[in-house]
Amino acid sequence: MQFQGPTSRLVPEGDDRERLVCRDCGFVLYENPKVIVGAVCTWEDRYLLCRRAIAPRIGFWTMPVGYMELHETTEQGAIREVWEEARATIEVDALLGLYAIPEISQVHMIYRGRMTNPDFAAGPESLEVGLFTWDEIPWDELAYPNVRWSLEYEREMKGRSGFAPRGRPERHAATQKVDKDSPAVLIQP
Amino acid sequence: MQFQGPTSRLVPEGDDRERLVCRDCGFVLYENPKVIVGAVCTWEDRYLLCRRAIAPRIGFWTMPVGYMELHETTEQGAIREVWEEARATIEVDALLGLYAIPEISQVHMIYRGRMTNPDFAAGPESLEVGLFTWDEIPWDELAYPNVRWSLEYEREMKGRSGFAPRGRPERHAATQKVDKDSPAVLIQP
Repeated sequence: MQFQGPTSRLVPEGDDRERLVCRDCGFVLYENPKVIVGAVCTWEDRYLLCRRAIAPRIGFWTMPVGYMELHETTEQGAIREVWEEARATIEVDALLGLYAIPEISQVHMIYRGRMTNPDFAAGPESLEVGLFTWDEIPWDELAYPNVRWSLEYEREMKGRSGFAPRGRPERHAATQKVDKDSPAVLIQP
Repeated sequence: MQFQGPTSRLVPEGDDRERLVCRDCGFVLYENPKVIVGAVCTWEDRYLLCRRAIAPRIGFWTMPVGYMELHETTEQGAIREVWEEARATIEVDALLGLYAIPEISQVHMIYRGRMTNPDFAAGPESLEVGLFTWDEIPWDELAYPNVRWSLEYEREMKGRSGFAPRGRPERHAATQKVDKDSPAVLIQP
């Protein structure tokens, strides 16, 4: 006999939608959207990018991003992810992007980060990490469309503060294809 | 014999922090921060507030807010909560507040909503719902400090667009008291 955790999909008493419930113990698994935090980090005129060492999108480039953890703020989560994936230290000063991706129940919050020094190194989830000028950015090898959205908005807002975060383009919201194993959406051609 | 779901706190293989694990079946419960969505809604010069019918803070006033659900955007979640709690329909046009509350692992996203008509009614989680002019707002009976923060910022940003969301005041971040049973922080005197 092997237990699998809560596997029955039903509406618990007092609730109004289906949840995963264990019929043995009554445990109810409340699944909620997950928050992804990260940062477009710069040193002088260069952008910090990581080449992914883990699935999905192994070998493709992204700003440092990952799941927000318990007991941290969104800014602290972004700073932590930058350290974990790129061994860089940043100061966060503005929210660049807020992308809701309902197909996979995620909310991505991407900040603008200023590196406090030019040091970086590949963390365990990165194959390599680099600082790229705008023209050197490997545009054809970006892991997700929101990497491009965030880089472009960082450039657009350079020198500005007090601006609204950008969202997902309408075009993408309508035509989105989703890789179910992916923590974010795939690149659209 | 009664099963209780995943109850052992340990670090799963390949992970780097403790999770709740079931020692019978190996099920790992990944707990992540939860997203709360809501909106400061206006009709002409009046603000839509709900008096809470459920714990915590029964009898106190709040803008419509609640947990974001799977497969919706943050804006859709805010619109849904406004309908569920106040039976009002809105258009969302800007993000007013983004409050991370790490003590209880929540991220609150409060939008600015324009009511599309003056109709409203109490939903099942509200004792009553009302439209208040600024001076009529029951300031001493607000459920959470972020209700005041959001109302004040809506007023400050009236007529403006393209602004950054406000965060939690530093003062609150430092001195916060938390009610563990509460979905948000308590009012500070």
